Order: sequence, then C-alpha cells, then structure tokens
Amino acid sequence: MVAFGRRDESEPVFSVTPYEVSGEVDYDRLIRQFGFKTINENLLNRLASLAGDLHPLLTRGVFFAHRDLDVLLDTVERGGEFYLYTGRGPSGHVHIGHMVPWVLTKWLQDRFKVRLYFQLTDDEKFLHRREMRLSEARSMAVENALDIAALGFNPELTLIFRDTDLIRVLYPVALKVAKRLTLSTVKAAFGFSDETNVGLTFFTSIQAAPAFLESELKGRPVPCLVPLAVDQDPHFRLARDVAPKLGYPKPSILHSRILRGLRGEAKMSSSDPRSAVFTTDSPDEARRKIMAAFTGGRPTVREQRELGGNPSNCAVFEYFRALFEPSDRRLEERRLACVSGNLICGECKAELAERVTKFLVEHQRKREAVRDMLDRFMDPAKFGL
Amino acid sequence: MVAFGRRDESEPVFSVTPYEVSGEVDYDRLIRQFGFKTINENLLNRLASLAGDLHPLLTRGVFFAHRDLDVLLDTVERGGEFYLYTGRGPSGHVHIGHMVPWVLTKWLQDRFKVRLYFQLTDDEKFLHRREMRLSEARSMAVENALDIAALGFNPELTLIFRDTDLIRVLYPVALKVAKRLTLSTVKAAFGFSDETNVGLTFFTSIQAAPAFLESELKGRPVPCLVPLAVDQDPHFRLARDVAPKLGYPKPSILHSRILRGLRGEAKMSSSDPRSAVFTTDSPDEARRKIMAAFTGGRPTVREQRELGGNPSNCAVFEYFRALFEPSDRRLEERRLACVSGNLICGECKAELAERVTKFLVEHQRKREAVRDMLDRFMDPAKFGL
Repeated sequence: MVAFGRRDESEPVFSVTPYEVSGEVDYDRLIRQFGFKTINENLLNRLASLAGDLHPLLTRGVFFAHRDLDVLLDTVERGGEFYLYTGRGPSGHVHIGHMVPWVLTKWLQDRFKVRLYFQLTDDEKFLHRREMRLSEARSMAVENALDIAALGFNPELTLIFRDTDLIRVLYPVALKVAKRLTLSTVKAAFGFSDETNVGLTFFTSIQAAPAFLESELKGRPVPCLVPLAVDQDPHFRLARDVAPKLGYPKPSILHSRILRGLRGEAKMSSSDPRSAVFTTDSPDEARRKIMAAFTGGRPTVREQRELGGNPSNCAVFEYFRALFEPSDRRLEERRLACVSGNLICGECKAELAERVTKFLVEHQRKREAVRDMLDRFMDPAKFGL
Repeated sequence: MVAFGRRDESEPVFSVTPYEVSGEVDYDRLIRQFGFKTINENLLNRLASLAGDLHPLLTRGVFFAHRDLDVLLDTVERGGEFYLYTGRGPSGHVHIGHMVPWVLTKWLQDRFKVRLYFQLTDDEKFLHRREMRLSEARSMAVENALDIAALGFNPELTLIFRDTDLIRVLYPVALKVAKRLTLSTVKAAFGFSDETNVGLTFFTSIQAAPAFLESELKGRPVPCLVPLAVDQDPHFRLARDVAPKLGYPKPSILHSRILRGLRGEAKMSSSDPRSAVFTTDSPDEARRKIMAAFTGGRPTVREQRELGGNPSNCAVFEYFRALFEPSDRRLEERRLACVSGNLICGECKAELAERVTKFLVEHQRKREAVRDMLDRFMDPAKFGL
C-alpha cells in the first residue's frame, strides 16, 4: 500500500502504510483500491446473532471494512473453530488511538471465548527506528503489555508475546512465508527502496506468522481473524496472497479507521506528545492536550452559534464516537448540538477531558494491578509453545 | 562478490558467491579484488610457534588467503582468548570437498582448545532451494552433523546447531546486523535481484550472528576466527563492515580454495552425484567415480609418457594434496612422477581410490559411532545458551 499519487488535481495525496500515514485518509478510495469490502447490514446481523450483540465500534463504522469476514462467519455458523490475532509495535507508550482495535478484539474474545495471539513487534520497531536500541524496544514492549493486559483480556486464552521471545516458534513459519515473497512484492506493498535495511524487508514474514500459527501447530486449517488499524493491512494482503500456497487458510481481516491526532494530523504520533493522550499521561496532561485539540469548530463562538460546528472533521467528536460515549442516543444528541451551534467546542472538550481523565485513572490502576499477572499473559507454555 | 565481468577479452568470466561458483576460479584475482591477504611465511611461522606445528592445508596453500589473521595472532600471542566458527549448508549429503575447512578447524581446535560454533544453515537451504521443504533441510542438517562429529571435534568445546534450533539466540544479534545492511549492499555482494526472496536477502544476518555471539554473550570483545571455503566470503565481508558499528571485533577469516568437481567443474556439485565422492557413498561407488575423474592427463598413454601430465589442473592431484597424502615428500614425488610422464592417470586414480575408500570405511564407522553423542554436540546448554 504505497503512497498514493494524485489521479487528477481534485484527488488529494495521502499515504497509508505501516511506516507512513499522512494526508487526509480517503477510506472509500482505500476500499476501492485494495479490494476491501464494507461491513454491511447483513454481515452485522449475522455477527450479532452469533455474538448476542454488536460493539459500537462496528455499528458506528469505526471498523469500516473487512476481508473475508463472511468466510469466517460461515465457519462460526457451522460450529467451526477460529482464533484472534492482533498486535502492537512498541515504539513508545500506548496512546488512546492504539486501543481501538484492541477494544474490539477483547469484545470478540469475550463473546466467542477463543484464543488470542497478541504480537509485540520489538524486532520491527528496532529495525525501523534509527536511534532505538533493541533493549529499548524489548522494555517498551513490556510496558505496552501492561496496557494490553489492563484491558481485561482472558489471561488463559491470551498470549502476549515479544517477537524476540517467541522467535523459535515464529521463525519456521516466517521462513515459509519469506520464501514466497520477492523483494519487488514487499517494495510495492510498503514503499521500500534499495536503501531499506534487509531486516525490515524480511519483517513482514514475522508479522504474517501468527496468522498461520494455530494451523501449523494443530496440523489442520484453523481460521484466524485479525482486527487491525487499516495501516497494517499491507502485511496481511501479502500474508493472504501466500496462504493458499502454504496450505493455510487466508486470515480474515477487520479494518478500523485511524483516529486522527489531537492536532488534526492523519494519525496520532508517538513522537509528538501533544498529538495524542497516552495511557501514562497524568490527568492534568491529558486535560491540557484535549483542551488544545483540533476541532471542527468555527474561529469564533459567534460564528459557531450561527453556523454550527463540523463533527465529521473533529478529533474530539471522533474520540467520543470511538471510545468515550457508550450511548448511541447521547452521541447523536452531541452531534446535533454541535451542528446546530448549541454546543461550543470549549464545553465539548471539557466533557471529553472529564471522561478521558476518568478512564486514565481507572486504566492506570488496572495497569498496576496486572503487573503480577504479566508472566501468565506472556507464558507461551499455556498454548503448548 | 558478484559474478565477474571480463575486464578485457583475455580475462575469463568466473563467479564465486555462496549461491554460484562457476568458471575457472582465478584466486589471484579474488585476492586483488576483495582485499584478501595471502598467507605468507611470516604468518605461518607465527602460527607454527603458537600451535607447535602447521597443518598441510596451510603449508600447501589449500588455505590460500586470509583477512586479519595477523590481528588474531597478535591477540593469541598476548595470551588473549578467541573462538572458532564455521558451518555447513545442509542441501544434501556431505562430500569430500566440504571437509577441507572442517579439517583445518579441527586442527585449530585441537591446538588451541577453544570453543567452536558449527552452524547448520537449514533456513538458508530451505530459502535457496525451490523444491526443498524445511523439514527436509532440518533432517539433512542432522545427517550432516553426523559427518561433522565423526571428524573428532571435542564435544564439550563444540556446539553444532541448526539455525532454526538456535534462532532465539541468533535472532537478536542478526537484527543488529540486518539494521546496518541495505538491500543495495546485499544485492551487490550476492548478485541478488528484486526477484530474490526476502528470506534470502535477510539470511546473511543470520550467518553473521555466530561471529559475534561470544562477544554478545560475554559482554566483552571476543575475537572469532572463521575458516571457510572462499565462496562464503561475501557473508563475512558484510559482517566485517558492520562489526565496528555494533561494537564487535571484526571476525578474522581463513579462505580455502574450492576443490574442483571430479568432472572438472569449478565446484563439486551436490546435484550431480558423479561430481563428488560423498561420505555416504559405498566404496564401490567412490571407486567408480574416481576412476572416471577428470585429470590433468594426456589423451593417450603414449602422449602422457612423452609429455607428462599436468597436476596443477587435475582433480585427482588436488584430492591428494588437500586430504589424501599426509607426506609432503611423497606428494612431491607424485607430482614429479606425473609431470615426467612416469605416472599414468589410471594408476594414480587407483591409488587415490584406495585411500578414499579406506577413509570412507573408517569415516562411516565413526559416523555411526557418534550417533549417540550427537545430543551432546548439539546441546546449547553447555555454552550457557
């Protein structure tokens, strides 16, 4: 998924790869260009009748596209098994945007009681970040694992692992993938050049491996469902291409939108601390960042009262929609209050700050509470590995 | 070390890389082009006074070049530590030609009582050979390990390992190497293209890793000496380039010539069974191959008697020189008898066949005898791994 060129002057340039997200992301164009399918009513109904309900991230379109979710639902409807796989690149602390796919993954695990492989790509972040030492990536991975465990995954059904720890298991599968991927293919998918290092071009094989691991271990095809932020799709586009050649089922994918940065950027940035609320921020820091956030508001309160705001281009509304307003009704009330000019950005931000800081206090407490359980989460023996 | 182009019409084309050896190898040109040093009298004398004697592979020029052997000898003369590292790509059974670097490595271990890492690159062979399954490469690696152990290495000081078994230890070091190697660099060194798979371009990092492993494990610089066949040099040229950036000492290298195939090819070929005597051949098979070998002889016995043979372009003489004539005096007698026309190829081959079959019978007995010891040879725990 290389950077997009403009087809004509009216189409803005944007880029969505694991190594660059920039510009105003056009989700419809992503769907067209990469052959995703939209998550339609029929699929949501099928999922609802299997799961008992639907998560707001699905009904509100934060998860906006999929690959072969229908195939996975066929399997589940027939009583077949599947497992979940998602991940995190431990380049720094976790921010709110990272949690979107994890929250849906937890919901899926709760509903279907299935295994989850949670990959921490310490190898990738070391390879990608010029100044990062491997020991730093490994330490940060453990920090991130605390945030993941704090979300309440089932410790018996969830294996959180660093690539460098599980490499003995991943490597043989990764080799099979790597043998089927040429340099041309990964260059095209990730926008790599001959100046890219040989570790990063190999890495996609390591990210593919967990999508095939249960099939490999059990010696029979076990379908895998991967909820992810859409910038990670290129890894799985390649993994899906090689899967049939290796006798594995193609992983099914659920794509989430990328929460924009608090300053309006295409993606929250770990390198600009003002761009995101991190799980390790103090409530005060979080409040300050949110109060300074980019919104869809007007330059002045008077204009806002007269013309209304634009919640569809607003980082603050996006936070409410994705994670901080459980009630559909109240979310719609907030939207209407914004567009009608009744709700001023200052108020709206203060209300978000209230909810985010409350979440942070609770999350940080849980994050400490799971510290003693981390060994259980990270013990591959429970999966027979 | 890409395939060589002709500089002018008088310079023949040849190629020496881990993935292709072809044409008539010009060792002087290799030395010039890649900055090897020849192994001169002074170095041999220094080595002899440390080791107590010299191995014929050194005095007869089968090991013809080095990188930083002098630096290693400086260390040893000061009482410093070092270790040995060599390897084998388990693409098939072992043939006589493979053993040349191993025989010198054993001699070095005997004389200096140092650790040896013996790498079996099951990953590489799987990645390189289109039709090979990973399980085949892994099985063949164990077969090859029997041949290695049968040579009499010290089981307490020797770790024979498959990459896929030791990857947990190798991978973090390989990542550090990989981060410093661009695709351009490995393309130039190995003659890879954009159609090469991403596993093979990464692999050189895995081959580099054992050269740094003792330094990594002990947390101090531990020099490494790598005896190898010259076609493996590109891996270590790159490893030496990155070593200082990673704080490791550059490995010192000893380069052996490549024994030509019995049919006169640049290198014995595992895919043409007539081209080499394999350690698993029956004495009859071995004899038949040797009796059909390419020699430096004349078309007819009469011409041979009149003009003499050419031992410097003769697979049979090369075998005597490298492995099957311990006495320098008798080797020289054989050479003179050949060039003077007194020794006819038929006789000479029969004498070689006699020695090779005797070796094979003994080797095959040892090969079975070490089967029970293989776990000891392959147990990384003895090195604290």
